Parts: sequence; C-alpha cells; structure tokens
Amino acid sequence: MTHEQKPFVVIYDTTLRDGMQGIEITYTVEDKIQIAHKLDELGVDYVEGGFPLSNEKEAEFFRRARDEHFDHAKIVAFGSTRKPGRKAEGDPHIEALLEAETEAVIVVGKAWTEHVTKVLKTSLEENLEMIYDSISYLRSKGRIVFFDLEHFFDGYKADPDYALKVLRAGTEAGAECLVVCDTNGGTLPHEVAEIMGALPQKELAPLGVHFHNDTGNAVANSLMGILSGAIHVQGTINGWGERCGNANLCSIMPTLHYKMGYPITAGPHLTKLTAVSRFVAEKANIIPDKRQPYVGEAAFSHKAGQHVDVLLKAEHLMEHMDASLVGNERRILISELAGKSTILKKLSRYGSFTKDSPEVEQLTRLLKEKEAEGYEYEAAEASFEILILKTLGLYKPLFEFDNYHLESFKAGSADSKTVGKLFLCAEDNEVMGAAVKVGPVEALDAALRDALLPYYPFIEEISLTDYRVRVLNPERATGARVRVFISSRNHNGHTWDTVGVHENIIEASWQALVDSYDYYYNIFVLSQRNTQ
Amino acid sequence: MTHEQKPFVVIYDTTLRDGMQGIEITYTVEDKIQIAHKLDELGVDYVEGGFPLSNEKEAEFFRRARDEHFDHAKIVAFGSTRKPGRKAEGDPHIEALLEAETEAVIVVGKAWTEHVTKVLKTSLEENLEMIYDSISYLRSKGRIVFFDLEHFFDGYKADPDYALKVLRAGTEAGAECLVVCDTNGGTLPHEVAEIMGALPQKELAPLGVHFHNDTGNAVANSLMGILSGAIHVQGTINGWGERCGNANLCSIMPTLHYKMGYPITAGPHLTKLTAVSRFVAEKANIIPDKRQPYVGEAAFSHKAGQHVDVLLKAEHLMEHMDASLVGNERRILISELAGKSTILKKLSRYGSFTKDSPEVEQLTRLLKEKEAEGYEYEAAEASFEILILKTLGLYKPLFEFDNYHLESFKAGSADSKTVGKLFLCAEDNEVMGAAVKVGPVEALDAALRDALLPYYPFIEEISLTDYRVRVLNPERATGARVRVFISSRNHNGHTWDTVGVHENIIEASWQALVDSYDYYYNIFVLSQRNTQ
Repeated sequence: MTHEQKPFVVIYDTTLRDGMQGIEITYTVEDKIQIAHKLDELGVDYVEGGFPLSNEKEAEFFRRARDEHFDHAKIVAFGSTRKPGRKAEGDPHIEALLEAETEAVIVVGKAWTEHVTKVLKTSLEENLEMIYDSISYLRSKGRIVFFDLEHFFDGYKADPDYALKVLRAGTEAGAECLVVCDTNGGTLPHEVAEIMGALPQKELAPLGVHFHNDTGNAVANSLMGILSGAIHVQGTINGWGERCGNANLCSIMPTLHYKMGYPITAGPHLTKLTAVSRFVAEKANIIPDKRQPYVGEAAFSHKAGQHVDVLLKAEHLMEHMDASLVGNERRILISELAGKSTILKKLSRYGSFTKDSPEVEQLTRLLKEKEAEGYEYEAAEASFEILILKTLGLYKPLFEFDNYHLESFKAGSADSKTVGKLFLCAEDNEVMGAAVKVGPVEALDAALRDALLPYYPFIEEISLTDYRVRVLNPERATGARVRVFISSRNHNGHTWDTVGVHENIIEASWQALVDSYDYYYNIFVLSQRNTQ
Repeated sequence: MTHEQKPFVVIYDTTLRDGMQGIEITYTVEDKIQIAHKLDELGVDYVEGGFPLSNEKEAEFFRRARDEHFDHAKIVAFGSTRKPGRKAEGDPHIEALLEAETEAVIVVGKAWTEHVTKVLKTSLEENLEMIYDSISYLRSKGRIVFFDLEHFFDGYKADPDYALKVLRAGTEAGAECLVVCDTNGGTLPHEVAEIMGALPQKELAPLGVHFHNDTGNAVANSLMGILSGAIHVQGTINGWGERCGNANLCSIMPTLHYKMGYPITAGPHLTKLTAVSRFVAEKANIIPDKRQPYVGEAAFSHKAGQHVDVLLKAEHLMEHMDASLVGNERRILISELAGKSTILKKLSRYGSFTKDSPEVEQLTRLLKEKEAEGYEYEAAEASFEILILKTLGLYKPLFEFDNYHLESFKAGSADSKTVGKLFLCAEDNEVMGAAVKVGPVEALDAALRDALLPYYPFIEEISLTDYRVRVLNPERATGARVRVFISSRNHNGHTWDTVGVHENIIEASWQALVDSYDYYYNIFVLSQRNTQ
C-alpha cells in the first residue's frame, strides 16, 4: 500500500444511472436535473446521467441537460459496446451515445470469458474488436470515453490473460480511463489489492473502480482500489443502487479528503455533503438511514452523560472528526444518562443558565420522571422543547382541552369505522370537531384539525409524515404501555418529532399530536409574530 | 496478507451490550433471553449479555440466563477495570462481574494515554496496574477473561509504546484474548493492516478486533484484522450499535465461511442467518434494511428480463453466491414457485400432498395475497396454521362474530377510559361481553373473555404475553396500516404467536386476538377431545 504519492482522484457519480437500479428508486427527469445540479455544486467531476437507449425518459434527460449550466461537472451518457458482427458506426447503442451530445460517454464491455460466450454469444476475439471499435469510433467523434469493464474481477479470477487483453483493447482504443467493475459484488478488499497490484498499470490507460456492496465492502474496496493505483472512483449518493447498492460516495469522499489526503474537486465543498445526501433521499422518497456514516442523523450522536463531559473537554477523544466538516451536527441525545451539561446546552438559546439554576434542576428532575414513565426525547426533540417552554413559563397552549370521545365499531363482515368527536376552547371559543375515519388515531387527528382550522389556518401547513409505535412492556400484552412517535413537516420542508406514552394508544397518540401542533404554534407561528 | 493458514475464528456477539447503545434500540430482558437463544442456535461462540453494574435490568438478564440452557454459546458479562487507587477485590465494577456468575467476563481498559490522563485522571502507570489487577483477580476466580482495549488504534497512533504496554499488561495478567477496539470508528482498513502487522504478536495473548462503522469500513476492518492475525471478532447482528453501528456479523460470518475459508462454529448454521437477522429486527422494532448485504430483502433481487434469462442459464454469472446458503432467497419479478416446498412441509401433518395438489396452489396464492397486504407469518405461525385449517376445511370457529363497539373518552385532566362491548354467538347462544379498561385493545380482549368464559372455561388457561405493533407504511402517518403480533401462552408454558394487519389498530389487534383463541381451541382443545 503506497502512501508516498497522493494523485488527484476523479469522483464519478452514477446515482442517476446505476443508482436507478436500486429497489424503490425512481426519479423524474426534473428530479434528475436537480440532483445533477446538487452534485455539480458539491464538486463531483462526472455525473452519469442515464442510459439514453433504454427509454425515452432517459433520452429526455440529456436533451434537457444540454441547456443547463454546470460549473464544473460533466454529464456522461452510458451505453454498451456495438453488437457482434456490426460496425460501430450506425450501431444503435453507439448512435444513442452520440445523440446524447455529451462531452463524455461511458461504454460498458465484457471482461469475463463466460459472459462473452454464453451471454453475448460471440467469440472472445470479436468481443475485443467490439470494445476497440466502439471506443475508437466515439473517440474519433471527439468524445471523452470511459470504459466500464463489466465483471472484471470475476473475469480476472477465471482468466487473467483475457481480462488483461480487454484492458489493452481499451487502452489502445484511447479510453480515458479503464473502470474495473465488480458487477456481482462478491470481491473482497484484499483481493482488490492483489488483483490490481498484479496489473501492468504503466502499460495501461489510468484505472478506475466501480464496486457493489454485496459483502458490505464497497467503500473499503474503492479505497483499496485507489491505494492500488486507481485515479477514478464510481459510486452513488447514499450508496443506493442494485441489490445492496453501489459504493457510497458520501463515505468515500470525506475519507479521501479528510483522512487520506487525496486531492478531490469536492474537497472544499464537503460541508454540503449532508444536505446533498438528504436532498437525494427526499427526491427518492426514501427515509434517510440514520446510521449512515458521516451524514446520518446518528453519525455524531452521543448518549451517555459521562461521554458528554469528555466531549466538552476534548472533542477528539470521543469523535473521529468534526461533524461540521461534512455539514452534519453533533447530537447529544437526551436520555436517562444525560447530564446537566446536556440540558444546559439545550437551554442556552433561552438565556444564560448555570448548572445550579433552579430551571436546570427542575428540568433534570422532570426528564428523569418522564423517562421513567417511558418517554424518550432522543428522537422527539420538539416534545423536549415544549417541556423547556413549560418550565420557563414561556409556553402558550394552542387550545384548552375539554374532552374527546371516540367510537370504534365493526359489525359482521363490514369494515371497522371510528367516529371521533372532541370539544375544546380555542381563542375563547367553545369548539367541536368531528370526523369519521377507519382507525381511532386518524379520527382523532381529523377531528382536532376540524376544530382548530377556523381559528388557526396555519394548521394546513402541517402534515404528519411518520407514525411509529413501540410497546414498552410487552409482557403486559394488551394492557402494555405504548410509546408513540409522530414526525411532522411544514410546507417549507422543516421537520420535527414528538412523543407520547400511555397504556391507551389513543391517549399516547393524542399527546404526540398535541405536542406537534403546539410546537409549531410556539416555535414557528408565535415567534414569527413576535419578530414582525 | 496471509492466505496460507486459516485459523479458527471466534465469533463474539455484542448485540445485547454495545448494540444497545444504538439509536432507538431497546430490548426487554425477555427479548434478550430470546435473542441469546437464537445466537446460540446460530453457532455464535460468545454472547455478551450486558453491563451488570449499569442498572438492575442488565443484572436481571444474568440472573435469568443462569437457568437457561445454551448448547454452545457462553454468556459474557461486561464491565470496566477497577477504579484508580483501589484493589480489584471489593471494587464495584469487578464484583458486579463476579456476581453475574458467568463462565466468561470482558473487562474494558484504556489504551490511549490522553484518555488515561484526561478522562480517568490517573497516571499511565496506575492504568497498567488497574488492567493487570482486574484481569488477574478475575482469572484467580476462575473466569475466562477477555480484555477490550478501548481506543486502541487512536492510542497506538498517538503513542505506540504505551499501547504496546497495555497489550503486555493484559497478556501477563492472563487475558484469553486482547481485543483491539476502534472506539471512535475513524480507522481505515489499510491502517488496521499496518498497525496490527507491526505488533509483536508472538509475544502477546491472541488478538481480537472490535470495529465501529463511522467511515463505512467496520466489516472490511474486521476482515483485515483477521487477515492480520486476529482470531476473535466482535460485532452485532445487523450491525446495529452506537452512532453508525458496530461491525455487522451478518456480513462477516458468511464472508469468513463461504468466501475466505476460515473455520467458524456458525459455519454449518448460516442457513439460519436471515431468520436471525429478522428476528432481532422484530425484537428491536426496527424495519429491516432491505439493502443489507446477504440477509436483506433486496440482496438477491433481480429485475426481470435479460438478467433472469442469464440467471436461469448459469446463476454464478449474475450472483456472487447462492442466497439459500444464508437462508435468504432470490427475488425475481416473474412469479415463482417460491414457498411451495415450505407450504408442503407445513401441510404434511394433515395428509400427503404434492406440489400440484389444489390445496397447495390455493395456499400459495393466499399466502402471496396476505403477504402483499402486510401479513407476515414467519413470527406468527399460529395464524398460518389457521389459514391451513381454513383451506383444508378443518377449521372450527370458536364463535360467530356479530359486532364490537368501543368507546374511548377522556374529559379534562381525568385519565382516559375505554368501554368495550361485543356480541357473538357461542355454541348456539347469543352472548354479550363487556369490560371497562384504559386502552381499546385491553377492553376488547376483556370483553371477549367476558363473553366466552361461561362457554369455554379453558380460556382461563390462556394468557397473552407479548403485544407488538409495527407501522407498515409510516409515511401515511396516522392513516398508516399497522401490523400487530400477539404472543400467547397456556398454563403448561406452551406458546404461540398470531398476527393481524389493518389501518385500524383495533381491528388489527382483534384479528390477532381471535386467531390466538381460535388456534388454541382448534389445535389444543379439539384435538385433545378427539383423542380422548
């Protein structure tokens, strides 16, 4: 493993092409354009935009991308080598690449003999010709041509001589970079070092790497590839892609830049990384993985009180890096073990307090009581904010509760229904809300909205986006206490989380619902009024 | 990297201890006992059960575990070295470890000078004494003692001589294994190889490794650690743990066994791996990651078309391994014979059937429909048994349902209450049941028992022991569909599990409740009557 030289590493993103093979992943053309801009702002060098031959939507992206301005990133069109027994000119695969009108294209070809003979059903010699012809023809049309060697690692294990011939064909044809791919995802880091170390790299065009995560090693394989001579790395944002995904650029980029000292264009822009990760998650409509390295919500979270004391003394003793370098933030989880220093930090926005302030004492006691009852504020900071407001005497309730009444019934084979009614006092008016829904929590929320909307039109800005239930003492079976978490979002994309706990799931949900509306009212609506 | 020899590798699971530090992870004592049994069946060598000193719940696990039978796995209690300036004997940390009454214990000590001086606030020399004393005292009490070297890699980078002294202190004190830990998670695979390669391993006790996933390299680091001489690897099921998690044993075990040829006890049991992964997810109430290597739902998925054609020709061309080796299955978009053999197996107790029997066809179709709606029978076999009885025309309902009606209300600051009423027909009698409870599910169950008890005294033999709720499409918030699991037990300790799915949690719970009583009636009560 070489440390003496640190060549520039090209970051090549395939979120919009290979990433689209992932389960549950689809992007509209508009999504793809927006994601391409985010990648450009992040300093990604190449953005693989799609496979123009595969369908009209893919081709449309390239037509639209032509009119877009990108500061640095180059858009790349993906396609395969010409078909056996044809010329490159006029071959539909090759022509589709040219019609994309991008400065750079990428051509995928076979590097495993069995794939050539059994899948392409052609000769090993013809496969080499297909690769040479396709790349050199595209070069003659002025394109930068990357060459993806599909199944390279498996192919090398089966027949290293042939895999090397494929690399040489790409080199001779003028490929910008030979991207060795682990298409089935079974290659391990030490094998990457062995195989890449055995290649006559000086006789070849520069190498790039493309890994899949089937053994959980896609990131490590990519780093090993770079340590073994590659100067180009492919991956996707959040690591989403076929099966277990592609190499995760959100892990590779900060590791190369901050930990290994490799120059990358994205280096100075990595403070945007967390935002880009979440933007792509939003477009993919996938809940971001809290445990994701560097950019996940839990990546810099700390639980215990002792830990927090150490953190405040010397961060490097408890954190492998500063969260802000990747645009993330440290989260001190409010938990049983949380010390006063945690609470002090949360209180700091409301004034200056010390460990001996009565408010700090009171909150510490309250937190202990609540946590003993089963409340958990780690994932429900908005509910904790309400506790703070109440303790400081700053809390303004949205309404005064009178009563709710829910009737759930089911007769014979008809589906169940719930009627929800509630009475409350909003801005000095006695109000009733009512709704009929399938389940009780849905009915309660609908009745609450029905009651509040005439007085607080901002209620319409709020949507509930997540609802989770945890049984706390399941051994009490149907009499167990349940904890409910609700996530809410406003029209501007701001999100917050609340919690409720009770033996009655309806009451637990009611607490979390009321906290959500109350939080929005106190933190957004009232503070805006005050600053106007 | 050595390939010539493949020593036996010890698998050490810390799901129940370090894994509990993960965001949103909590297990009851009963959950922990059940998970320990699953790990034992899988062939895990050591199961770290918790930190007995930290709280009563942790200590209770060890009291319960003493009476449990494990085929192979040894339970390990976790704790730290003695406090500075004390003796090991009588130190609360050390005594708590002895009181756990396990054959093996693990002691964590500091390997980074700054942590010794700034966090422990003691001298470097005293830290070495603390380590030596603690381990040798525990050894003198007949325990197998593992030694966790906290922050080893960061400590080694800062002061390799001191880190080596810590290793030697553990060796001299008689530690079974020196577990080098990357506590902050920033170490990279090539650094693991360099640092471990530089250690005088022949002069030391055997090495083990413990990695965190903060750069996405915990699995690769573990493999690199083993290639660099470690013979013990720590991790968690699904990789859940503090921040970005621990090294994922669900990736490490199949890679060691199937791809690297290292002998592990779990080797012959890895066909259970996917089931264990999902069992732990169920207990943690976390939706399993579909993209997880080896055990994820998408790990062996293929989009239809060309891929599938290639697959049917030669699987190894498109898959890095056979999914069934880890108990997972290939998923392709064309309809498949998936599940038929499982169904056949289940049916065998009711007679002889073949894959072409109409009952098998019918059950396969039904199972597909139900699973598409969100039912899951892996953890609810009693509900599946009822589907079988219904399909075969053998099902005898316990009662005929007429209607249920639940009223939940809360007024002012009084606690919420639910009145449950239901009408049904039992043994040709029209019966009403009624009850008042806090929550709706409790009220429904109590009303059902009220109605049935006069006709079926055996109802008293049944108690409900577990109730779990999972929101299936959380993005639909309070209108989401929920899945309820209920575990039941009779007076003889026999247990069974049932499932219900609906947008209305009451209705989902009702389905699982009725299945539970029906199952007991059909399988226990009626069959006993028939054999008398």
